[in-house]
Amino acid sequence: MTSTETVFSSQALLAHWQGHRRLTRRVIEVFPEDKLFGFSIGGMRPFSEMAKEFLKMTEPIAHGVATGQWTPFSGELDTVRTKTEILRLWDEATEKLNAIWPTIPAHRFAEVDKAFGQWENSGINTILYGIDNEIHHRGQGFVYLRALGIEPPPFWER
Amino acid sequence: MTSTETVFSSQALLAHWQGHRRLTRRVIEVFPEDKLFGFSIGGMRPFSEMAKEFLKMTEPIAHGVATGQWTPFSGELDTVRTKTEILRLWDEATEKLNAIWPTIPAHRFAEVDKAFGQWENSGINTILYGIDNEIHHRGQGFVYLRALGIEPPPFWER
Repeated sequence: MTSTETVFSSQALLAHWQGHRRLTRRVIEVFPEDKLFGFSIGGMRPFSEMAKEFLKMTEPIAHGVATGQWTPFSGELDTVRTKTEILRLWDEATEKLNAIWPTIPAHRFAEVDKAFGQWENSGINTILYGIDNEIHHRGQGFVYLRALGIEPPPFWER
Repeated sequence: MTSTETVFSSQALLAHWQGHRRLTRRVIEVFPEDKLFGFSIGGMRPFSEMAKEFLKMTEPIAHGVATGQWTPFSGELDTVRTKTEILRLWDEATEKLNAIWPTIPAHRFAEVDKAFGQWENSGINTILYGIDNEIHHRGQGFVYLRALGIEPPPFWER
């Protein structure tokens, strides 16, 4: 095949991302609240901080790829101290991502932009970086859960 | 945009996968040999076993998507006991992946097949599952390294 054939559509990519986000939501849910905010290994962040990082990336990345405007997450995350509040913000981001997605102009996936004024990459690569970063740190959350004797949700279930 | 627009080419997907594989190679390299084969947290596998799983998936997935034939990894992994040997197999898989990739017929990315006779999915989703599984477990390797007081390679460097 030629190297430029389509392998992935916009719709499939959104479904892929939201599938991963559903799994991450289950990981947040299964953490006991005190461990979500207080447990870590090897000097790393607690999983709540990782989840906040995902929130800081998800909607702002979609918005930036859609519009070329790179604005930080609009909510206040520093004061978030409960699982309920994280899950509420998570569900809001799910809706926002679904709403922004169809507004992304086709050419923006290939177009190189400086994400958040700092990271020069194509739209698709910036999006994949966000997804991969979530998979990476969520895998770390799985280790926290195992170390706590808690069974994580199945990785393949989205 | 319409939902079926291209967001990712075959060539970009291969580059994405090989970039992740380069990072995983660096993670294997940075583990002290005894910890690679012997260290774990919470009853999980040592990172050597995760690396072997990646080897079992990479070339066989590419071969299966290319040909429709799902054959297990051809090498002997149970007897692998050194980092050098894992890295040698890793580099062989890199070459094989590069060689197989251009032979994947375009329609196979969207076509649904039963991977390894078990997992029914489109070619693209089976490939992404392999990549995501590597990111997920490699993230766990990062925790092992941090717990050992070893700085992992930067996640963003591919």
